[in-house]
Amino acid sequence: MSGPCVSAFDWVPDFARGLVRDLRVRWALEEAGIAYDSDLKNFEESKGPAYRQWQPFGQVPAYDDGQVRMFESGAIVTHIALGSEALMPRDEAGRARALTWIFAALNSIEPGVSQLAETDLFHEGEDWTKERRPQVEEELRQRLGELSAQLNGRDWLEDRFTAGDLMMSTVLRNLRQTSILNDYPVLTAYQHRCEARPAFQRALAAQLGDFKEAA
Amino acid sequence: MSGPCVSAFDWVPDFARGLVRDLRVRWALEEAGIAYDSDLKNFEESKGPAYRQWQPFGQVPAYDDGQVRMFESGAIVTHIALGSEALMPRDEAGRARALTWIFAALNSIEPGVSQLAETDLFHEGEDWTKERRPQVEEELRQRLGELSAQLNGRDWLEDRFTAGDLMMSTVLRNLRQTSILNDYPVLTAYQHRCEARPAFQRALAAQLGDFKEAA
Repeated sequence: MSGPCVSAFDWVPDFARGLVRDLRVRWALEEAGIAYDSDLKNFEESKGPAYRQWQPFGQVPAYDDGQVRMFESGAIVTHIALGSEALMPRDEAGRARALTWIFAALNSIEPGVSQLAETDLFHEGEDWTKERRPQVEEELRQRLGELSAQLNGRDWLEDRFTAGDLMMSTVLRNLRQTSILNDYPVLTAYQHRCEARPAFQRALAAQLGDFKEAA
Repeated sequence: MSGPCVSAFDWVPDFARGLVRDLRVRWALEEAGIAYDSDLKNFEESKGPAYRQWQPFGQVPAYDDGQVRMFESGAIVTHIALGSEALMPRDEAGRARALTWIFAALNSIEPGVSQLAETDLFHEGEDWTKERRPQVEEELRQRLGELSAQLNGRDWLEDRFTAGDLMMSTVLRNLRQTSILNDYPVLTAYQHRCEARPAFQRALAAQLGDFKEAA
């Protein structure tokens, strides 16, 4: 093994392809110019005791480069970013801004996005969703409006691309089962700008390619 | 101003006292031995345009030390931890483990905790909660069981206290409106161990003290 090893699923349903969180780590490694190997798990393996030694919650991705062994996509991307100027400025103030947006993506935007995606993809037609879904969407739209105001007139969340943009755009991808982002042209343009990066395209192709190989 | 400045609310309802997220930043600064000032906002100010220049979502805490200006409790705690061995080992492998648990707290445990707290505190009695609450509790209990297995026989998530324990224990605090943790004695003992730290006690007293002063 030359580079780090990243765990990923060998199969997921179509609706999840291109969204599984190893995509974030693959993208970060591509931006940083670090070659890696994927370590594919089937669902049963991912919940077994051997894999839980690496990832106690049985989720992907987990990361191992021989010296550093860790999990959580946010943590792995932050670890890679701390070692790569392509993902995070070296000065303390710039580093803090990139950290801010990594956490804002995961903790101020993703909770609403995830609740909506979970409602739509796993609980469709259940009675409770009729009353609850509009509440979740309203709160999420509030945050998306605030994010849009922040991004208006800018290419990136700060004055250059950082790991914060990587995390934010992968969070926004999880709205693709809805048309909500159509109401936020600033966010749509931003997401396209992020996803047009060659490193993202390579990461996406690699995740989708791994599914194909296992099929 | 000698040390950094941390934004906090001047008033919150009783159920939120001792839980607001500036507690995490106060605790991290206490562990790191850094004196700070709190910058109290009332609810109206926190949603106004001036404060949104600092925190675009109108939330607390935000942080400013004259050189670094940032927000998101997870990001601020990570920033402080990167500069303090009291919160994060200096070696790359140890740093990565602390990062892992910071993100695991916020992204593998907190989503279920927050959904439950939101259901209980803001939507009590609404029809949808009857069907949905048990689903959320069941998924959360799965994660708590996995976390308990990880912590069994250990004092901390790693071989010493880190910012990961700080984040995890403040997430578990948000279950206090329920009796769920009683079913996980390993987690109850862990939370007590974290909260017995003098730095936590000082941080908690400071948050509660700021409410009193403003009242």
